[in-house]
Order: sequence, then structure tokens, then C-alpha cells
Amino acid sequence: MQLDVADAPVGGKADWLTVRLRQAIGDGRLAVGGRLPPTRVLAAELGVSRGVVAEAYRRLTEDGHVEGRRRGGTVVVAAPAVPLPAEPAQPRPPAGLFANTPTPDVFEALRAAPARVDFTPGQPDLAAFPRAAWLQAERTVLAGLSAGHLGYGDPRGTPQLRQAVADWLARNRGIRVAPDEVLIVAGTAQALTLLHPVLRADGVDSVAVEDPGSLGTRQHLVNGDLATPPVPVDDDGIRVDALRATGARAVLLTPAHQFPMGVVASGERRRELLHWAAGDGGLIVEDDYDAEHRYDRPPVPALRALLADRVCYLGSVSKLLAPALRIGWVVPPPRYRDALVNGKRFTDLGNAVLPQLVLARLMASGDLERHLRMLRGRHRRRRDAMTQALAAHLPGAVAHGAAAGLHLTVTYPQDVPDTDLAAAALALGVKCQPLSWHRQLPGRPGLVLGYAATPPGAIAEGVAALGEALRALS
Amino acid sequence: MQLDVADAPVGGKADWLTVRLRQAIGDGRLAVGGRLPPTRVLAAELGVSRGVVAEAYRRLTEDGHVEGRRRGGTVVVAAPAVPLPAEPAQPRPPAGLFANTPTPDVFEALRAAPARVDFTPGQPDLAAFPRAAWLQAERTVLAGLSAGHLGYGDPRGTPQLRQAVADWLARNRGIRVAPDEVLIVAGTAQALTLLHPVLRADGVDSVAVEDPGSLGTRQHLVNGDLATPPVPVDDDGIRVDALRATGARAVLLTPAHQFPMGVVASGERRRELLHWAAGDGGLIVEDDYDAEHRYDRPPVPALRALLADRVCYLGSVSKLLAPALRIGWVVPPPRYRDALVNGKRFTDLGNAVLPQLVLARLMASGDLERHLRMLRGRHRRRRDAMTQALAAHLPGAVAHGAAAGLHLTVTYPQDVPDTDLAAAALALGVKCQPLSWHRQLPGRPGLVLGYAATPPGAIAEGVAALGEALRALS
Repeated sequence: MQLDVADAPVGGKADWLTVRLRQAIGDGRLAVGGRLPPTRVLAAELGVSRGVVAEAYRRLTEDGHVEGRRRGGTVVVAAPAVPLPAEPAQPRPPAGLFANTPTPDVFEALRAAPARVDFTPGQPDLAAFPRAAWLQAERTVLAGLSAGHLGYGDPRGTPQLRQAVADWLARNRGIRVAPDEVLIVAGTAQALTLLHPVLRADGVDSVAVEDPGSLGTRQHLVNGDLATPPVPVDDDGIRVDALRATGARAVLLTPAHQFPMGVVASGERRRELLHWAAGDGGLIVEDDYDAEHRYDRPPVPALRALLADRVCYLGSVSKLLAPALRIGWVVPPPRYRDALVNGKRFTDLGNAVLPQLVLARLMASGDLERHLRMLRGRHRRRRDAMTQALAAHLPGAVAHGAAAGLHLTVTYPQDVPDTDLAAAALALGVKCQPLSWHRQLPGRPGLVLGYAATPPGAIAEGVAALGEALRALS
Repeated sequence: MQLDVADAPVGGKADWLTVRLRQAIGDGRLAVGGRLPPTRVLAAELGVSRGVVAEAYRRLTEDGHVEGRRRGGTVVVAAPAVPLPAEPAQPRPPAGLFANTPTPDVFEALRAAPARVDFTPGQPDLAAFPRAAWLQAERTVLAGLSAGHLGYGDPRGTPQLRQAVADWLARNRGIRVAPDEVLIVAGTAQALTLLHPVLRADGVDSVAVEDPGSLGTRQHLVNGDLATPPVPVDDDGIRVDALRATGARAVLLTPAHQFPMGVVASGERRRELLHWAAGDGGLIVEDDYDAEHRYDRPPVPALRALLADRVCYLGSVSKLLAPALRIGWVVPPPRYRDALVNGKRFTDLGNAVLPQLVLARLMASGDLERHLRMLRGRHRRRRDAMTQALAAHLPGAVAHGAAAGLHLTVTYPQDVPDTDLAAAALALGVKCQPLSWHRQLPGRPGLVLGYAATPPGAIAEGVAALGEALRALS
């Protein structure tokens, strides 16, 4: 051991020696089972008082690193843990990505795969994130904050954000609720996590899902020990007769813009659904993931606006601002409220406060609605670019659900498995999701293509590559 | 219905009429079961074209609000949900607060109770939160952010924060780990939530806890279907013989500064614990909640530094910066890592990204350590003020654990139940927690008194009131 007491700060020799000895034990220079020099010897060697060495040994004894054994001297008994070697980041090879049944980490693997053009659905134009407005609002929030705001908060969310969300839902989604009925959560994933035990406690052991319907949502329900019987979706929305036939007491729906097919539930279907919920005691989990984004049609109010007792409404800022914010909201049926709040309390004691207050300001000031209008223009141009490119490069293909949202789904007449097509596209540098990921029942192959986060030029280039890949496989 | 088409924006008559009719249905002016006027009639009344009215009726039909019934006309079939009356905020009456067995919402009830002086433990001096440094770091982060950072992220946390935490743990807690071994979570509450199912899957159905030991932690474990056999704490820390006698395969510990008694586990006890963990295959959950705050003694390294395979380490910024940030970290035993990451993925897809990047900057720049040094000085003065006031106003009382942390625990010789004393103190405007809340086994009454968030003058005033309350009850 190379120890030079000249390195020790004034008045801190015992500290210094303790740290050095601990390091030496940690990296094996002083092995477990070995003996430390007697205090007298080490003190003389270092040119320090014996008390300094004794103090260092005392602290190491207190740490549990060494043990005094009378005549056996002071022996090293436990080493600090040595770090394991870091695992190298291993993006899954593109081939495996689409070859196997997708596991819960498949979305991270897809994200990690390199590509020139990214058509992964579910993201707004993140380059347009209102950084200046966010920072400005945060400055105002920090300036006006009391110390109490920085402590443990209300597990339901801050009153400011619950009010802002209640107002937002009234203006944009036709839902009129008191702020106390709104629960702020860390996105829709957390809403589902909180909902699982509440549903199971209510005797619900299976939640019917749309087919095609979101793979991520289905994985989530399965992880929560809930069965997910599939219910076909047609051009009017989910087939309520088939829903009834499953016997499931709950269904997870995306009625404003069905994922991934983009269908808007028709008035007739909505009435049938409400009859099912009210008459048969069914519960509707309404995932309103991208309803604020619409281009060629008037807004459709949320189902929650029609039947408060039987609809659990889920919304989030992931498609309005950015998924990275991890802020969402639940408007549950009143009978589920307390159990959900209790779950939120144990899960994380409530969302972080600063971002809630910043978002509340952006919602209340109208900044968020201005941002949304701006996004709508950008997204519409990108949607148009994709529709045109599809017509040019995938003749015979049909685009579904392009009147709203952040993605469209394209089906094609060729008999090419969509996982093969997605893999071939990725090899050409274009990332997208195969429609079959989102199916439990057999059906036409297709691709789910997010356009909102990609500029028109890259969209044209990416769709051309999809056309190329499809021709090569046909 | 008072409808004046002059209110309608140019080119938006159908929109306007739809909204007005929806409102009228919502507030009952158009009752469910009632019939809308024929389009011809309403069009004439309003002075608009029949197409405008037909379009409005079509949209209401699509919404599911009305239904066309041929000769029966257009009938209202479903009303938008009317908001429930907001529940008035009801802080629980102080008497009830301490009279009953505390429920999981007891901490919120205590927070809501009004008081002049707040000795609730567990909060640093929040008035000292480094607002300017936080905002400055956020500005830098926002300026340098790529769009990709705003999308869905790594459920384990951003690489930047995991690196900063790994460095922090090496510098401050003697733990040397690779960033890949660190999992960022939304505070210790979430760490426990993620741990419960992993423990149960590992065959652990009970987690021994210190006695006295944190009520909140115990409630959390019970909520996770885990038994919490109590193990007495003496002046050297938890009694390992009693731990062994419980037969529990896991224990939750606060070895650096036992909550609430403030004991530092002795070297001998630490060695016994490590023998128990290594020899009997026990798991130690190490809650390192306030270890960075110490005044009269050198730092004690974490147990995780000594036995990586058997210790699951939990830390957070709640006591370093502010609970409202909801950021913490877990350094699990390697065999639990994948299951915890999977749990975090489903729970919320990972912590929000912006605050992680801001915190990583504050940690890497040394700002957080500077803040901590400043806090240490402030807290020490407050600790001294409380110790002096206790000597003056509660003669015969003993203060425990004042060498470190953000609180001390005081026991007193009188035979006054501490819940009665806490209730009497609250009636005098002073908030604190009775020691018996944190006990499962019988023991001396006492109070747990946080001093870090209260200026010295208020501390003196508050402790004087405690003395007054105790005299009145004795």
C-alpha cells in the first residue's frame, strides 16, 4: 500500500486513513482474512499518532470491514462489494425482433434498433415540444412555490392540475367532472397497473380487447393476471354482439380512434355499448389515447361523458406533449375511486409535483391548446404526405383510420407475412410495427405506420422503401 | 332553449348548434326520452338552413346522444354525465387522528391538520430547495435535449442519472456499482411496491421489521401481502438473535440511522447481520433514507457495500432535495434485477425524463453535494436548538439518535400515552408523531420530532408547547 500522509487534509488524518484502508480492502490489496498492521507499527510507518490509526481501525470495525481479535490482531472480515462488469448494451438483432412472439421488452428492442426513418406509432412531433413555454412556466412555478409544495403531496395529484384537467376534459372531450374525480397518474401504463387489482377485487378476471388492438395494452392486462378475450372490430367499431358472447364483464376500448385500425365507433355502436354496460353491468375502460388529434372530422365526445358509472376514462399527455413526461389521468367510476387512490398512494405517493404544476399552467393558459393546433397542422401535412406516398409506392394497399390520430394502418393484397415485411423494411432502414403484433385472431397482414414524428420528405423516402421491400418479398 | 344564431361563428353553424344541443341534453333542458323538434321546424325557428340542423342531429346521433326513430322523430336517449358535487376537503379532526389505529391515509390527515409548528419527521429544510440551480440545470437540459429524449425511454432510468447515482453512491455511501445495476424509481414507496411481487415469487412471505420501526414502511409491506414480524432494536441496532428467531427470510433495515430511534448499527451487529444473510440465505432490504445527513460522527458505509448478493439497497432524493420530486433508486441483488425492471416497465414505463436529467446534472456538477453541506449546517443548528429546548422544557426526557438525520426521538418518564400527548400538542398548534405509531411491541411512550424543516425560534416555541402539554397530562 502506498500511503503518504502528505495527501491527508489538515485535521482529517483519521478520515483519510479510513478511506484509504477501505479502498485497499475493496480492491483486494488487503485481502479478507488478512491482518492489519498493529496500530503502533502503522502509526510509525506513516508518521502519524497512534490515535489516528486506532480511530481508523475503530471506524472500519464499526463498518463491519475488520474485526479485533485480541492477540490475533485486527483482521479483515468483509470487503466492500466490487462492481460487476457492466453489461454491454445489446440491441436485439432486427431478425429476432420480428421472428418471435413479441415479449414485453419488444418495444424497447424496436426503439434500440437503428433506422433512418422511424414510423413507430404513438409519438407526436417531439421536435415541436414547446421548450420555451415549458421553461417559462417552470420559472413561474418555482418562483411562486411554497416550501409545502416540495414535501409529500396529495396522492391524487395537485389541485391545480386536477382542476386544469377537469377543464380540459370539458372543453375538449365533452366530459364534465369535478376536480376531485380526477386522479393524476404516471401515464396510461400506470393507470392500468392501478386498475388491475381493483378489477380483480370487483370479480373481473378477464377484460375483452379489440381485435386488432394494442399489443402493449394486451401485454399489460396479461401481466396483471387478466385474460384478454379478443373481440373483432369492423367499420363501425367493436362488435358488441361478439363482446357479449365473450362473457367478459369488462372491455378495453379506444372508441375515438380505434388502435390500430382508426375506426370511429358509430353512434349505433356507441348506443349498443352503453346498453351492454348499463344493462349487463359491464365496465368500459376507455383509452382515449389520441382523441385530441383529428383532421377531417368533428370531435367525438368520450364515452365517459355519457355513462359515468360504467366507464373508467384514461388520458395522458404522451400524445399531446411527450411520452417522456409520464403524466396521465384517470376519471374512474365513482365506486372505484378510493381503491385507485389507495393504490396510487402505495405505488409512489403521487406524481412528482413540479411537472404537474408546470403542466397545469400550460393547460390553464391556453398554451397547450395553441400547441395542439400547431401540431394539428404539421401532423395533417405529414398524414397527407404518407397517404400520397402509399398511393404511389404500395398500389392496391388500403390506408385505414387516416382522419385522426398520429398513425395510419395499411393493409395490402399480397400474401406476404407482415413480420417479414417489417423485418425487410428494417433492413432497408425503416422502422414500423407489423399489424399482426396487434392481432389475436387471424386477419389480413398490414403495417402500423406512425407519421406524426417524421417530416414529409423522410415519409416519402420511408414509404418508397416499404414498397421496395414488399415487391422484393411478393 | 334560448338559441340565437347570431352567436354562431361564420361557417360554424352546425358546430355551434351541436354544442348547444349537447349542453341542453346535459343539463336536462332536453330530457332523456324527449323528442327533438323536426329539422324543418327548428331550422325555420333559428333562421338556418335545414342542412345545418340535420348535420347537428347527425353528430348527436353519432355521439350516441339521440336516436332517429322514423315516425317517432329524433329522441334523446343518453345524456352526458353531469358532474357529481365536489367533495369538500375534510381534514380529519385532530382528536380522531391519534385516537384510532393509524390507517394508510393517516399521514395525509396529519399533513392536512393545521398547526403553527410542524415537527413531522422526514423532511429536509424545503425552504432551502435550490430553485435557481434547478432552473438553470433545466434550461441547459432543455437546450441540449434531442427529440428522442422526449419519447418513451428506458424503464431503468436515463443512462445519465444512473451514472450520476452510481458515482454518488461510490463517493457518499461506499457502494461501488456499475450504472446498469442502478434502477431509477419514483421514491422508496415505489421501490417497495416493485419489490413485493419479486419477494413473493422468491418464496418470501414475511419481511421482519425493526421495532420500533417506520409505520409507513410497515403499512406498505402489509399492503403487499407480506407479514411484518417485529424485531427489537437496542443500542447496537437490530437484535440479530431475535431476527433469526422470527424465521423470516427477509428483513427491512435502516442501519445507518435507525428510524425512529436513530441508532447506528454497531460493527459487531453488522457482522452478525451479514453472517445471517450470507449463512442463512437471508435478504436485507436496506432503507438508506437519510444517511447523508450526519453531524457528530463519520459516515457509515451502506451494508450493500459489503454484501451485494444479499442486500437490496434503497435510496432517494426525498431527504436530500425534496419529497415532491419523487425520484429514488434501487441497487438490487443481481438476481432480482430483471424482475424489478419488468415491474417498473409495467408500472409506469420508467420515471419522467426531464427531472432525471436535471438531477443528473446537479449530482455530476457537485451542486447537490454543495447543497447538502449547506443543509448540514442549517440542520445541525436546528438539531442543537431542539436538544436545548428539550432539556429546558421536558426535564427527565431522553433524546435518541440526534447525531444524524432529520429528526430525533424523545422518550419521557411520565406515564402519559404518547397518542394523548400528540393530540394535546396538536391542540396547542404543534404537530408531531407519537412513537407508538411506529411500534408493534409494547415500549416506552415517546415522540418522533423532525427538526430539519423548522427554524430555531419555532423549534423552541414548539418544544415549550410540548412541555406544557406533557405537564397538563401528567
